[in-house]
Parts: sequence; C-alpha cells; structure tokens
Amino acid sequence: MSDARMLSVLSSLSHVARQLDVAHSSRPSANGNCVKLDMNENPFPLPAIVKESAMAALERHHLYPENDNIALREAAACAYGFSPDQVIAGNGSSELLGLIYKAFLVPGDTVAMLSPGFSFNRRLAMLQDAHFLEIGWIENNSLPINRLLFGRAGVAKFIVLANPNNPTGTFVPIADIERLVAQSERLIVLDEAYVDFAPDNALRLVNRYPNLLLLRTFSKSYGVAGVRVGFGFGHPELVGRLRTMQSLFSMNVISQAVGLSILAHRDAYAENRRHIVRERERVARALSAHRFAVLPSEANFVLARVPPGHDGAWWQAALQERNVLVAFFPEEGLENYIRISIGTKVQMEAFLSAVSDVSVSQT
Amino acid sequence: MSDARMLSVLSSLSHVARQLDVAHSSRPSANGNCVKLDMNENPFPLPAIVKESAMAALERHHLYPENDNIALREAAACAYGFSPDQVIAGNGSSELLGLIYKAFLVPGDTVAMLSPGFSFNRRLAMLQDAHFLEIGWIENNSLPINRLLFGRAGVAKFIVLANPNNPTGTFVPIADIERLVAQSERLIVLDEAYVDFAPDNALRLVNRYPNLLLLRTFSKSYGVAGVRVGFGFGHPELVGRLRTMQSLFSMNVISQAVGLSILAHRDAYAENRRHIVRERERVARALSAHRFAVLPSEANFVLARVPPGHDGAWWQAALQERNVLVAFFPEEGLENYIRISIGTKVQMEAFLSAVSDVSVSQT
Repeated sequence: MSDARMLSVLSSLSHVARQLDVAHSSRPSANGNCVKLDMNENPFPLPAIVKESAMAALERHHLYPENDNIALREAAACAYGFSPDQVIAGNGSSELLGLIYKAFLVPGDTVAMLSPGFSFNRRLAMLQDAHFLEIGWIENNSLPINRLLFGRAGVAKFIVLANPNNPTGTFVPIADIERLVAQSERLIVLDEAYVDFAPDNALRLVNRYPNLLLLRTFSKSYGVAGVRVGFGFGHPELVGRLRTMQSLFSMNVISQAVGLSILAHRDAYAENRRHIVRERERVARALSAHRFAVLPSEANFVLARVPPGHDGAWWQAALQERNVLVAFFPEEGLENYIRISIGTKVQMEAFLSAVSDVSVSQT
Repeated sequence: MSDARMLSVLSSLSHVARQLDVAHSSRPSANGNCVKLDMNENPFPLPAIVKESAMAALERHHLYPENDNIALREAAACAYGFSPDQVIAGNGSSELLGLIYKAFLVPGDTVAMLSPGFSFNRRLAMLQDAHFLEIGWIENNSLPINRLLFGRAGVAKFIVLANPNNPTGTFVPIADIERLVAQSERLIVLDEAYVDFAPDNALRLVNRYPNLLLLRTFSKSYGVAGVRVGFGFGHPELVGRLRTMQSLFSMNVISQAVGLSILAHRDAYAENRRHIVRERERVARALSAHRFAVLPSEANFVLARVPPGHDGAWWQAALQERNVLVAFFPEEGLENYIRISIGTKVQMEAFLSAVSDVSVSQT
C-alpha cells in the first residue's frame, strides 16, 4: 500500500525531477587542520566595522528581511554607477544564475558555456531539462567569439562565460568581451566573480548593451562566501523579471547587512587584494621552479600543470596527505592540472613546503 | 539598435518569464515606531546561547557553508524522530515550497490549495505556468476532504494546506489530516508553520504515509524570521530529489548555526510559547468585548471580524494612524477581517488601547 502510494507520488513529478538522483550526502572527513586552498575562499578576517554591522543585524533576527533587498540594491547601484532597477541582489551569485536558467530555458532548449568553466552551470541546465553545450577554449588563443555565437551554439538561448575564467584564471581584455556582446543578439551572462583581482572589468558595458548581464559575488574579493552575497547588473526589463521570480526573502537580515556594510567600506579591502595578487605571482614563480607550468592568472587562484610523471589527482592526494587541500578537475583536458587558491603568506608557505616535500620524495 | 537587441533578448525568455511583471519596489514608509503585528513575527529575543552560536558562526564568514546542510539535517532528524534522509533544510520553508512547485509542476499542470491560505502559493504556481485551484473552506465546517481530492481538484499534482491555517488560525484535528492523506494517492503538502502554538501535530504521520510532506519553519515559534530556517520531512525518495534540486549554499553559515543551536535548546522557548498562547486568549476576549468576532485560533495570531459599520481596510488604516500595524486581506470573503499577530504584553496593550481609541472615536 505504502509503496504503491509512493510510486503514485513519484509519477506526479515532472520529467526532470523523476529522473534526478536522490541526494546522498555524507559528512566530509574532518579537514579542520588542513590548509584549505581548494575553493578559492579568501581567508582574511572581516573588517571590524563590517562585523559590527552583522552583529547589529542579528538583533533583527525576529523580523522578516526587507523584501526585494531594496536598500542593498540602492547601495550597490550607487557604488557601481547604476540605477537600482538595473540591480538584483541575491543569496550568492549562484541564486542569480539559477534565476537566469529558469527564466530562459524550457525543456529541450540549449545554453552554451565557455569551457572549461564553472561546473554548477551544467547542473542548472540539467534541472531545466536543457542541453548544455560547452564551447572549448584552446589555451593561449583569443576568445572563440565565432564558436560561442554561431555553429552549434547558434541555437543557445544565452551564453555564459566568466572573466577571469574559472578554473583557468585567464583574463580576456574587455575589448574582446565587448566584441562578443556587440556581435550577439542574445543574452551574454558574464560572471565577474574574480574580477577584483584583475586589471579591468566590464561594468562600463552594461549601459551600452542591453544583452549583457554581469554577475558579481562578495565571496572572493570580500571574503564572505559563507554569508552569501551576490549581485547582477543589467537592463531593467530583464533584471526586473528576475527579481519577480526570486523566492521570498532569499537573503537573510545578516547577508543584507554584511552586503551593505561591505559596499560602504570597500576601501578596507584594498590591501587584502594587493596581498593576494603579490602572493599569486610569488607562488607562480615558485611552482615554475618545481617544474609546474602555471597558467597566467588574474584571479585569486592559479591553475598549474603538474610535472611529468604523475597526474593532477595524484598530486591532489599527495598534498592532502601533507594537510594541504587543492582542487582537481577530472574532466577531459584537465587531468594533469591542479588549482590552488591564493591565501595568506602562512598558508602559501605551507603549500610550497608540501610541494617541495612531494618533489623530494619522488627523487 | 539597443532596443532591437533588448527585444531579441526578451524573446528568448520562457513563456512564463516573458509575461511576468517587472518588479518595481519602493521603500515602505518608515514604520520604525509602530507596534508591528502584521506578519506573525515573534518579538522575543534570541536565547543568549543561540546568539553566541550565531556570533561564532560569523567567524566562518569566509568559508562556504556546509553543502546539503548535513549537520543541520542530522540534528533535525534527531530532534523530530526521523533519519537524516527524510529531512531537507532550507532558507525558510519558502525555499522548500518553491522546490516542491518546481519538482511537480510543468506548464498547464494544476495545484490545489485549501483557501483562504498562504498567498505565496499562488505566485509559485504562476511561476510554473500552472493552474492554481483554491478549494474554499466554509468556516466552522470540517475539512473539505472530498473537494480537496475529487471534482475539479482531481487533476491536481499535489494539494497544499496549512495546519493551523493562515490567515484563519483554524486547527484541524490530526485524525482529519490523516483521513485526507490516507484517502489520497497524491502528495499532500502540510505546512505546520504555526503548529508549535497548537495542541497537536502531524509528525507521527510522516513514517506512515509516503505521500505526506510536512513543512516546518523557525520563523514563528523560534523567532528567527530574519535568519531563514525551515525544514521539510517526508519520504527519502522525494526529499532526496528536492535536495538535489536545491541551489548551492542556499543557507548561509549563520542560518545553519542558528538552526543547530535552536534545535539543541528548544526548551528555552517553552515559556515564550506559553506567553503567546495566554495573550492570544486574553486578546480574543478583549476584542469580543469591543464587538469583534474572533475566530478560534491555535496559532500566534487571531483573525477577527470587525464590528459592523466599517470594513477591515478601514480598521487597518485607523490602527495604523495610531501606530499599530495589523494585516488586512483584500480577497473575497476576508473584506471584513483583520489579522493580529500576538506579541509581547506591552505590544498587545498598545494594540488594545488603539482599538479602544478607535471604538470611542466612532461613538
């Protein structure tokens, strides 16, 4: 009886939901003592004034958050040179990406992403029952504009790319981004999660091109991945629809307050960013000396081809044995790479020391 | 050129998104000095130990939250007598409701809700391009089980109801809920947002009926509407799919920590709840003396028919002039009602004093 009833419920699910895997999570093994360089987190503490704002917001625990994040959108509009109706704020840029997929894709549609890219996009496409088309990017070549817009990608409802890209760290000149957007009649979603570590950004294109939607997060350069603060900037007709689609109160009172306070105190982060850029260059040089081939990066991480003899998975495991966590990507073309987030000097010394130790153990 | 490009982008939107209104929010007028009894918020402070947990979590601002809320789901499973794979945790029960709508409804499908009910459901149905069927409930009658399951509602993919119901406050005996669930082959979504103020709950039905999904929130009885903590309890096959559909990191490190800490210290809220139940009965009696007809409520609010001569909107405005905010619902059948949240004794004295003042001003 019970089983028949369960099957009846499952048969009411949408086509997509019926075919989904049932989530089976388990606690990760305790990594509390590890140097964590696997998720591009920013280890610097909150400025005292931002922390005070968060604690003050906690006093409003019992009140529903402000609907539509009005104050936060106004502050972001002011900080980045837009009007509030060009701004959407969200529970991390991941919420905003999800809204875009939901707004554009129905079953059978196609979305195109510059590849390698942020794998969460593949999952979002799957949840819309849409085709996910990866447009490969040959290293050291220029942005494949024609392949992003024409050929197989010609049917894509929108195109996603990140600049700097993840996991490569590659930064494309804004003039190239502008050529892509100008040649497209379709929406270009440009994820600038890492742009604060790069020499330029595409904010100035938003008012020129209504088919550009730019995403930002405070997870990286502002160090609040755990609090969840993200923004989208674009045309009011599009941004306004995405806001209509948002869930009730997707940001809580603390993430709203932290976002507001960071916007008011962005100067406090300048030295943190300079440190990360300096360490990035120092780590890249040191890795080269250990026979890694490091891709030029303008983000808070580097992607490095490991020395001949072992693959990336081997290096990830060897470093983890030495209490250092880095990222490895099993997909084709990335088997011989590891990605290393750039943190404090102490963290990077521990990483380089572990690399030395692994290298020595091989000889 | 720009406009043509915008039209091209909008034409790529899904049917639903194309027809959506563009959100136009404006800041609400400042109500900082008002007694806020319009959103069923719980005005009591966080227990000190819960507040300390939140502040400790803030130190993890830079780390991504635990994926799939594993620790929180384990704690909720333990507290409510389930296994972790029967539990989903979310950014308020609003996120969980959204997942259910997305999992079951494709354009043209139907969902049925007991009416009057929580209006957010209508918006969720609209976002799925689904028909929203309201099954009217005649006051003082028993639960309309036949009309929820058969007739026009016979095509509904799932059925939503709340117990106690909002905005009526009506509590249905769990035996009636069980009859509904037992007679249905389809999913019954039972929102128990207000159940901690009621004499019984439906937790014991979850293991018996795989077609029951029970929702809980910590917004009401645990006073953290601003932090966003909600749970769903149901069959692992369904709950596991909903978890697969969740956005990355929809709860932040603070909402996870607050949820965990409340689960560990639920006893600390017993006196708060007893106070609210006592005040509810006192306010109901006092309103009756002012010629209001108060519906029996087992929630942290009462729905009251205003005295003859004016409608609910008039009373809402008259009370707001006296710095007291209550809720009014413009839909048919509720025109002569206001809903009053039950707060502290000081708040309720201010409300009753404003009611007296309005009554006197009419004579």
